[in-house]
Amino acid sequence: MPTLDAQPLANAIRFLSIDAILRAGEGHQGVPLGMAEIATALFTRHLKFNPADPTWPDRDRFVLSNGHGSMLLYSLLYLTGYARIGLDQIKTFREFGSHCAGHPEYDPACGIEVTTGPLGQGIANAFGMAVAEAFLNAKFGSGLVDHYTYSFVGDGCLQEGIGQEMISLAGHLRLGKLILCWDDNRITDDGSTDLSISEDVRERFRVAGWHVIDVDGHDIDAVSAALELARKDPRPSMLACRSIIGRGIARLQGQRGGHSGKLFDADAEAARKLLGWPHKPFEVPEEILSAWRSAGQRSDAEYRAWQARVAALPSEERAEFERIQAGRLPDGWREVLETYRRRAADHAEAQQGIMVSGEINGLLAPVLPERMVGCADLEAPTSHKRSLHAFTAEDRGGAYVHCGVREHVMGAMANGMAAHGGVFATCVTYLAFSDYERPAMRMAALMGLPVKFVFSHDSIGLGRNGPTHQPVEILASLRAMPNMHVMRPADAVEAAECWEVALERRSGPSTMVFARQALPPVRRTHVGGNLSRRGAYVLAEAEGGKRQVTLLATGSEVAIALAARARLRAEGVATAVVSMPCWELFDEQSADYRAAVLGLGTVRVAVEAAMRFGWDRYLGENGGFVGMESFGASGPAEVLFEHFGITASRVVEEARRRL
Amino acid sequence: MPTLDAQPLANAIRFLSIDAILRAGEGHQGVPLGMAEIATALFTRHLKFNPADPTWPDRDRFVLSNGHGSMLLYSLLYLTGYARIGLDQIKTFREFGSHCAGHPEYDPACGIEVTTGPLGQGIANAFGMAVAEAFLNAKFGSGLVDHYTYSFVGDGCLQEGIGQEMISLAGHLRLGKLILCWDDNRITDDGSTDLSISEDVRERFRVAGWHVIDVDGHDIDAVSAALELARKDPRPSMLACRSIIGRGIARLQGQRGGHSGKLFDADAEAARKLLGWPHKPFEVPEEILSAWRSAGQRSDAEYRAWQARVAALPSEERAEFERIQAGRLPDGWREVLETYRRRAADHAEAQQGIMVSGEINGLLAPVLPERMVGCADLEAPTSHKRSLHAFTAEDRGGAYVHCGVREHVMGAMANGMAAHGGVFATCVTYLAFSDYERPAMRMAALMGLPVKFVFSHDSIGLGRNGPTHQPVEILASLRAMPNMHVMRPADAVEAAECWEVALERRSGPSTMVFARQALPPVRRTHVGGNLSRRGAYVLAEAEGGKRQVTLLATGSEVAIALAARARLRAEGVATAVVSMPCWELFDEQSADYRAAVLGLGTVRVAVEAAMRFGWDRYLGENGGFVGMESFGASGPAEVLFEHFGITASRVVEEARRRL
Repeated sequence: MPTLDAQPLANAIRFLSIDAILRAGEGHQGVPLGMAEIATALFTRHLKFNPADPTWPDRDRFVLSNGHGSMLLYSLLYLTGYARIGLDQIKTFREFGSHCAGHPEYDPACGIEVTTGPLGQGIANAFGMAVAEAFLNAKFGSGLVDHYTYSFVGDGCLQEGIGQEMISLAGHLRLGKLILCWDDNRITDDGSTDLSISEDVRERFRVAGWHVIDVDGHDIDAVSAALELARKDPRPSMLACRSIIGRGIARLQGQRGGHSGKLFDADAEAARKLLGWPHKPFEVPEEILSAWRSAGQRSDAEYRAWQARVAALPSEERAEFERIQAGRLPDGWREVLETYRRRAADHAEAQQGIMVSGEINGLLAPVLPERMVGCADLEAPTSHKRSLHAFTAEDRGGAYVHCGVREHVMGAMANGMAAHGGVFATCVTYLAFSDYERPAMRMAALMGLPVKFVFSHDSIGLGRNGPTHQPVEILASLRAMPNMHVMRPADAVEAAECWEVALERRSGPSTMVFARQALPPVRRTHVGGNLSRRGAYVLAEAEGGKRQVTLLATGSEVAIALAARARLRAEGVATAVVSMPCWELFDEQSADYRAAVLGLGTVRVAVEAAMRFGWDRYLGENGGFVGMESFGASGPAEVLFEHFGITASRVVEEARRRL
Repeated sequence: MPTLDAQPLANAIRFLSIDAILRAGEGHQGVPLGMAEIATALFTRHLKFNPADPTWPDRDRFVLSNGHGSMLLYSLLYLTGYARIGLDQIKTFREFGSHCAGHPEYDPACGIEVTTGPLGQGIANAFGMAVAEAFLNAKFGSGLVDHYTYSFVGDGCLQEGIGQEMISLAGHLRLGKLILCWDDNRITDDGSTDLSISEDVRERFRVAGWHVIDVDGHDIDAVSAALELARKDPRPSMLACRSIIGRGIARLQGQRGGHSGKLFDADAEAARKLLGWPHKPFEVPEEILSAWRSAGQRSDAEYRAWQARVAALPSEERAEFERIQAGRLPDGWREVLETYRRRAADHAEAQQGIMVSGEINGLLAPVLPERMVGCADLEAPTSHKRSLHAFTAEDRGGAYVHCGVREHVMGAMANGMAAHGGVFATCVTYLAFSDYERPAMRMAALMGLPVKFVFSHDSIGLGRNGPTHQPVEILASLRAMPNMHVMRPADAVEAAECWEVALERRSGPSTMVFARQALPPVRRTHVGGNLSRRGAYVLAEAEGGKRQVTLLATGSEVAIALAARARLRAEGVATAVVSMPCWELFDEQSADYRAAVLGLGTVRVAVEAAMRFGWDRYLGENGGFVGMESFGASGPAEVLFEHFGITASRVVEEARRRL
């Protein structure tokens, strides 16, 4: 700890933030000015990190959940010496291409652990990081994995449902190394928090089993002492930091405008006088900068000791640790899937879609020890627990997180695990409930995190639970999302192929969609390659002449397309069936491949037990579609398919009409 | 209250439920068997209702939030004498076409107040109903509006984020006539609640300002006494009803399988012995049925007195009350919009999209006193408060609900208001955060509720807050939803037209999407009709010969299309611009109209600052698209439009390439 009085260090954050926001002409000063002392306490006295190696696996994680206060983070990264966040970046805050974007954007090499902005996501990511840490600590021991996860959080994150889910679940799981610093400034965008909340937030945390400490958020020593207490307590901790929003801008501080009211030169001038900061814009006096830089080197000894421990590991153990940290897949995983595929093609039995995925994941469990699965209270019907045991407050070796009926925090937890590294993160629920999880799925796609979002009950085929549980628009809504792969396998063979592709994918999330009902086998011959890898392929080519009709289908409707093809063939119509498990992969193929598969120039009819929305690009202007035109209904699956006309007869009819 | 011992009344619920579930071969017995006594206490001693007039405006509302327990509700409706829920319906539980669907499906004429199933929605709807009641009570007095809202709720609803948001906000708003009965059975689908929750749920409610009463959920008198206390308390009340899931099925009760484990004949037989119920399946002894039917007539005197009070109202007041209850629009609303449109066309100023909507809503406020607006802590940037004042614990006359950063409960609150009736429900936030609200929006579409979901910040045009705040896939994801109108007006005139259409729409929700940035006027001449009513129309026809190019656009990109048209015209290319504010309305038009507007046979290029997904149906196989192919970025709006190539030059280029 520097001997220098700490207050100027906090003020360095303040003025970098004020200057950057002034230069940008907009921004949110409330958080950097209100949390400057809290951040100073954490970064100069507690946080274990190494700006020279931002992705050190055993670093403490820091998540700015109130992401609009991004200048707080950028100031800290610059001051502590992250090479990529120089003054040039600070000065381009909010300009296109700057590392200092409006909200923090995931970039571990810059020291930005996750993208934050949509409220509540950050603390839920932090929760996921703390779960990952506990799991890896149990696996590798405290010599290799032993760090805290800190998150700064405002009132908004705690009002959001996802925040509340996190509070409840983190308390239940007793994640003692998760520490939140709440910016208790009693102001939100609308004004006083009295407008929308009356409850005692401290008590709400205590009810959930958290350790809560009240502290003056502008007293660096007090915050530091509270952090010390928090680190020692076996419960997750919440520091309720009483603070003044926008502190230092006399005209706005403590008021609604403190959040992001426009700053003027006169505000900065007045703040310089008020806080005794005579320095020019963007100028941090040498002595203060060097104190900050030494804070950035505080963990050097720990860092070297950790490196030495890793180096001293038996070579096999070290290789495994490094493999898992790097997110590389282990030897043998592909063979597991290959064997499964071969067997599935040979046996060719109808099986419930989601059970197939469960079985595949069960087989992967022994070769993929870094796998963790979260599930939102649907263990039995989604079947992805299998040989795993539960991750609990008492057993950190468990890999299955019973999330309760809390889909949103489940998804964000998986994002946090993936961002943390060392965990292969999967979560499971029904497809209809993906809407509850969707904001987290969007964040995974935006960050490019390789989370696997698994869903069961993918259509009206789930039957009598009715339209609330029957996705019809959800495939389209997920396919519309950039950087999201949506995979809907037709049978066990395709399921194994899709899982192979999903396992390989590192640049973004995969949504794996499975039927509740039994899927008749459509791939009865084992082939060496992975046909699903190209997104769509000709499953059954037209026989007896030039192709006249191309039937396109996914998932459970591929079998319907095959049945329709058989009828059309019987009528002498040369018909091909194309299975399209993943549109996004298909769209990446060459124009020639796409044209050949789609059969441009032939009559095209698609069948999918979902809305047509999005299909037209594969159908052309005259193509036919057999699917849903409304929400579903409550009734037996076979009755519903008949009622909504998702049948081979309808497919034949649509094709015939166009011949 | 019947003099008959009440226990057999509860058992009538039990056996109807067991018999129906047995006949269906599936279902969830946990709730009807576990909450039979609670329901009996409520329906035979407290609930104000009239099975002969299920939509009596001043009835107490009852919401089964744990909707999987639907047989509880159907049993109650049959027993108390709702004409549409006869034994024939009970016997067709879960069959296609039955009123007794897998989960309750919105049908006020049957006594089903809202669709429930996705957990947490029901209690949030109930909360919205209680808000509506308080608002209407303030407006019309207790003689006309004075009822309670009861909701049954399980552990799942309370674990969900939306449930937590509701607890916090309902406590804050001190909705004393909202009463929850929590089925505290300590079991969820995965097994013991110990798997996923440790907090004291009672305390969690108390922290939020609720009145909590502990009660034995199988003691009808105790539950009844607790309900009496609840009704008298000025705080919202939660009865923590200790209960045994699936009570009566000895093999399953109190266990995980109690929830929905398959029932067999032997289970029913054993239950008949255990509970002393010798009657045949579906048989309710006359004496018990008649006790239930008198319970159904308990409120007759109140009903008649209420009718008399309504009849005695001064005719103008009565007409207004009946108009509002019926959801009919008042005189004068259309003139307000007409005047606005005329002025907007004449003045033709660029205005921020969301401010235009705010202004329109501000003008409607005096003629539409039933309007309520919820907003998720974005009052200033979404601008829909205007002349309204806040609905608070102290002031029930306020029409603006500061929801805090709680989008999910906001949406479900609006659904509850709309289902309640008497309120024109609107809610507002940023479009990127619609994902947080989406599960509620889906329920509005599914139920066909006329909620107006208003959004601002509809594209990269919001600028430097970056990709977390920039919708690119969200228009598509909402357009994919059945029965949802998505409207994206291009300027102030179209905004007024779209609001006109949205105001008229009673059969489902409307999503109104507005830009943050200024929209240059594209409609500079006042026309009598509402051009947006057909969803899409030719804004600027090709001049100087046969149309060669058709440019399609929505919202802020219509101006870009017009600029491209000017350039193409200068090159001698006859180009039309089509504005498409609402796809769903356009899709309802005749094939001829659609073909003429789209200009089949011409070169078609669409421009929208969003993903292409969904556009192909209007573009044909050779159409061009200018828009987003990825998430956005942080930077000034004009830089982003240039960077992502959403410019008139690109539109011209795409058109030219195809000529």
